[in-house]
Amino acid sequence: MSVANRTRGMDAVAESACSIERSVDIIGERWSFLILREALIYGVTRYSDFQSSLGISTNILVDRLNRIVAAGVLEKRMYQEAGSRPRASYHATPKGEALKLVLAAIQQWGDDFNPPKDGVTFNRRTVAEDRPVRVGFVDDNNEPRALDDVAFVRTALHPPR
Amino acid sequence: MSVANRTRGMDAVAESACSIERSVDIIGERWSFLILREALIYGVTRYSDFQSSLGISTNILVDRLNRIVAAGVLEKRMYQEAGSRPRASYHATPKGEALKLVLAAIQQWGDDFNPPKDGVTFNRRTVAEDRPVRVGFVDDNNEPRALDDVAFVRTALHPPR
Repeated sequence: MSVANRTRGMDAVAESACSIERSVDIIGERWSFLILREALIYGVTRYSDFQSSLGISTNILVDRLNRIVAAGVLEKRMYQEAGSRPRASYHATPKGEALKLVLAAIQQWGDDFNPPKDGVTFNRRTVAEDRPVRVGFVDDNNEPRALDDVAFVRTALHPPR
Repeated sequence: MSVANRTRGMDAVAESACSIERSVDIIGERWSFLILREALIYGVTRYSDFQSSLGISTNILVDRLNRIVAAGVLEKRMYQEAGSRPRASYHATPKGEALKLVLAAIQQWGDDFNPPKDGVTFNRRTVAEDRPVRVGFVDDNNEPRALDDVAFVRTALHPPR
């Protein structure tokens, strides 16, 4: 991040050419991750269920949900039950669904290198055959590739540094 | 996260049975992500190079590096050049190297759904043949699997909720 970028504040930061930095500006915060965990892994949709499962304060939850909605990751819908006032629910967009892979990569890393002492609480499995899956690199021949077979290669658009 | 867990503070939070939550306690913060980007993607090792490339304040950089070292992701080494005082450098452990997959998943998601307006600045490529790779799910037959072929399945150890 350049000095100019730093001094222009959050709007400028969000325009960084770095896809990690722009993504972290959306999801790189503890509560945002945990809200996305609730939405994408536990299937939570209702505002009241986010609040009860995370035990998060109202102002933080509203702020983070608004950011996540503004980023196009969750979509806000209103619903109304008989005799109640309208309430908000939140549903993953395709952009949000794609974050399941990021959460799975983070979960797998935690399971591999920092497991809970009693054992893991989730497995990643195929829906149809209930077989184990791992997150990994796959090449353009659909062949899995090891971590050290892969490099991050700068494009011509990479800013000088 | 239970109410009991919330009220026991950060130590208790770090013991969560959830591998996403424990991982986010290590890496789920803007500066920590950007430090890991520098270390794992740009190959930065020296304290002074982290500082100059990120433009980060000394106290934040020291704090985040200490947390990342305490988590076993980077290893701190001392080096000394002729005529200079000893200085610190930071090198990825195997646990840190494995985070490349997480960073690649985040980068890919940013490239796919929130690309920089001028185009992406990194590609993920094989080292030997310079062919494109993607992060994805791979099953136990080494077959790539689509996002919606995969479910997060709770184990018997998942806490009730």
